[in-house]
Amino acid sequence: VHTNHDELLTHLRTTVGEASVLTGDGLEAYEVDWRKRYRGRALAVVRPRSTDEVAAVVRLCRRHGVAIVPQGGHTGLVGGGTPDDSGRQVVLQLGRLNRVRAFDEANFSMTVEAGCVLQSVQEAAAARGLWFPLSLAAEGSCTIGGNLATNAGGTQVLRFGNARELCLGLEVVTADGQVWDGLGGLRKDNTGYSLRDLFIGSEGTLGVITAAVLQLVPRPVAQVTALAAVPDLDAAVSLLRTATARCGASLTAFEVMNPLSLELVARHVPGLSPPWAGHAVPPSAWTVLLEVSDGESEAHAQALLESALGEALEHDHVLEALVASSVAHSRQFWHLREAIPLAQAAEGLNLKHDISIPVSRIPAFVAATDRSVQAVSPGARMVTFGHLGDGNLHYNVQAPAGVEPSGYLQAFEPAINACVYDAVQAHGGSISAEHGIGALKRDELERRKSAVALALMRSIKQALDPADLFNPGRLLRRR
Amino acid sequence: VHTNHDELLTHLRTTVGEASVLTGDGLEAYEVDWRKRYRGRALAVVRPRSTDEVAAVVRLCRRHGVAIVPQGGHTGLVGGGTPDDSGRQVVLQLGRLNRVRAFDEANFSMTVEAGCVLQSVQEAAAARGLWFPLSLAAEGSCTIGGNLATNAGGTQVLRFGNARELCLGLEVVTADGQVWDGLGGLRKDNTGYSLRDLFIGSEGTLGVITAAVLQLVPRPVAQVTALAAVPDLDAAVSLLRTATARCGASLTAFEVMNPLSLELVARHVPGLSPPWAGHAVPPSAWTVLLEVSDGESEAHAQALLESALGEALEHDHVLEALVASSVAHSRQFWHLREAIPLAQAAEGLNLKHDISIPVSRIPAFVAATDRSVQAVSPGARMVTFGHLGDGNLHYNVQAPAGVEPSGYLQAFEPAINACVYDAVQAHGGSISAEHGIGALKRDELERRKSAVALALMRSIKQALDPADLFNPGRLLRRR
Repeated sequence: VHTNHDELLTHLRTTVGEASVLTGDGLEAYEVDWRKRYRGRALAVVRPRSTDEVAAVVRLCRRHGVAIVPQGGHTGLVGGGTPDDSGRQVVLQLGRLNRVRAFDEANFSMTVEAGCVLQSVQEAAAARGLWFPLSLAAEGSCTIGGNLATNAGGTQVLRFGNARELCLGLEVVTADGQVWDGLGGLRKDNTGYSLRDLFIGSEGTLGVITAAVLQLVPRPVAQVTALAAVPDLDAAVSLLRTATARCGASLTAFEVMNPLSLELVARHVPGLSPPWAGHAVPPSAWTVLLEVSDGESEAHAQALLESALGEALEHDHVLEALVASSVAHSRQFWHLREAIPLAQAAEGLNLKHDISIPVSRIPAFVAATDRSVQAVSPGARMVTFGHLGDGNLHYNVQAPAGVEPSGYLQAFEPAINACVYDAVQAHGGSISAEHGIGALKRDELERRKSAVALALMRSIKQALDPADLFNPGRLLRRR
Repeated sequence: VHTNHDELLTHLRTTVGEASVLTGDGLEAYEVDWRKRYRGRALAVVRPRSTDEVAAVVRLCRRHGVAIVPQGGHTGLVGGGTPDDSGRQVVLQLGRLNRVRAFDEANFSMTVEAGCVLQSVQEAAAARGLWFPLSLAAEGSCTIGGNLATNAGGTQVLRFGNARELCLGLEVVTADGQVWDGLGGLRKDNTGYSLRDLFIGSEGTLGVITAAVLQLVPRPVAQVTALAAVPDLDAAVSLLRTATARCGASLTAFEVMNPLSLELVARHVPGLSPPWAGHAVPPSAWTVLLEVSDGESEAHAQALLESALGEALEHDHVLEALVASSVAHSRQFWHLREAIPLAQAAEGLNLKHDISIPVSRIPAFVAATDRSVQAVSPGARMVTFGHLGDGNLHYNVQAPAGVEPSGYLQAFEPAINACVYDAVQAHGGSISAEHGIGALKRDELERRKSAVALALMRSIKQALDPADLFNPGRLLRRR
């Protein structure tokens, strides 16, 4: 086997050039995941410059029976892009496939290579007066290939959908090293199975995404943001309904935050004070962030938002509301929301659950799960926030006040996870709303997903990647 | 084999009841397709009443090696739901699975069985004050199962997408007669391959859709329609850009019609006069139908539409525009558009091409294809219309004036199809935008789709339906 590896490395160097095949030490950026929960060891990190080079690398690895772990910005949260610790997997790092291949303004689309950083895609669209609305915390370093391979979500899903809904086509290198060109850029194409949708969200286990056609939209003329204090989650769901009816497609964000998440932000993030200080808002109130994006004017956006908030105030679904008076003010509201993960980290290690539930069942889910987590771990502190408009909560758990977090996690992680995922299942939800499965949730998926669904997934994996070449052991167990 | 068939029929009768297994004569409704191009002969038509009965029927047919053709409203346009003429296929007619299982207003969703007629779904949503925006000519008889199996399009795709984008989950009977329950109704669920998207658009070749969770939206307060005369298709594309920028997500339809399509309507459909009679519009002008749906007020919708048309008039992209002054007036505009297929039928047999092209390339495509069709068949009359906003044209060809159509079709169909599909391929388009492949375009698909895509599709079919039980020979050739 060792000889084989040397031979493979030689072939790889001949194919993509010496400088594009990294081996040895100093490869932590590729071998350790962003949350530092997974530490792998790669046979090599290969950095091809073109789709043809990717295909050649795949054919070589296949011939030598060496597995490939595709990697973009390596910002995933579930260890799906990190090699295992065998030292026998090749990391296929796609960062050098970073060209914008085409821009088609009349078709509202652009064609980009997989290694383009999300923020650079947003900027390229903006430079043409258009908008690529996919937006998430890691946008400065994550790549569009990874966004599509994991069907990334983020803050604009309510209006524009996940990465899936923003993709008109793909180019993919298959497990036999061929290139599937699905870059048509068509809005309608009923010529057989939706291969695009199969590769999107497959986490690098079925093929390597090398390029994509992205859907663009007109840039909004104005974006107006508001914070609303609501008595409880039931009221938040009612407010969502009112805002959807009043603002329609202009409602581009509807985020919820429990009291503790904002307390932690106030405690750990300088310059972010609690929004309801000085207002007659009880400490038990939850906070909703609403955003309206408008094609007409700021005044029109403001009027839409105020009409929704006004109706909700009348029905006591909203206790108090603040409408941002400037872009800077809006940014501050968003900053509150976006600082929560940071504040959580500052408070100490914690358990994260990226889950979704039908919106209507979220209040009951949170009530029931809070109770059962407290029964297992009295004093556990719930940091619950997220994209309520999409039914997606980050239901996170912090150690009780004063308890040392890492020991706590070791002792309670399995029991708390069981509580949360049992409740997710009982409420018809998903154990991974937007982060994917990767290595972290693979075994949980085996326990929670129906046998029929798992069998279908395994058949598909077997059909498209019979040698288990792509990202083996991620998402699904090895065969 | 014959003995087997008798035994199967006996088992089927025991399983779903005598009255639910139809055999013999009088089954034309199930055996002849809507366009009367395919005349099959079924071993039996089975009409189960529940998902469990569907699963039992699948297991029985599988055990006897008898193929199943799933069928809903049987309104497909490509022969995908019609049995072959062997008399050895079972038609699985799903019309009795027609319950609305659940309605979740706070989740903006409803769960319906596959046999629900589209119009009844629309009405059930409307009764709750919500809107299910999928809308197409056959809505009075097509079923939601068929809409999803074929990823139906229609007139609201521009804003709401195809059937795919309006579906939150599926229940499917697999080829081994198991039930996959994917009815979560979640907006976000990144737990593995998107099985939902794989079954949607698979035309009954991978599984039998028995139920679905549908996405609902708020009902618009007002819908305003306009007709615009544009000098040519380039101007129509410019108008689309202006309208998208001005009206954003409120723009719910953008349909185009060439002069001949409106002439045929005026000739054959009583009460529908040409819209530009008495206006200073040249006979070569194309007509665009725009619709704006608004959550605020009729006045606001009208203002949006007028601002878009005003800008286009200034740039000479629009020659003349009519904004509907009442709901009845709007209906009349839509009637013009919807009467085209009827008017074409009255004019005589014709060739239909349901194609899509990136919007930006549509003017060049039509110019080039018109030329090459005229070269092959001088005097051929082009009836070109469709959903320009989605890049989807119905590029239809009528025999030259005075030429007997059926002989003409026989003589020219292959050559004209070759012209059209060559041009579609050269312009990066699709040979089936919304009607699917079925039997009609199966061989064309083999010629036009890349070998890599076809190989992927065949692997998937083999993986999920190894015995070729579901709709064999449709979409893909039999193995």
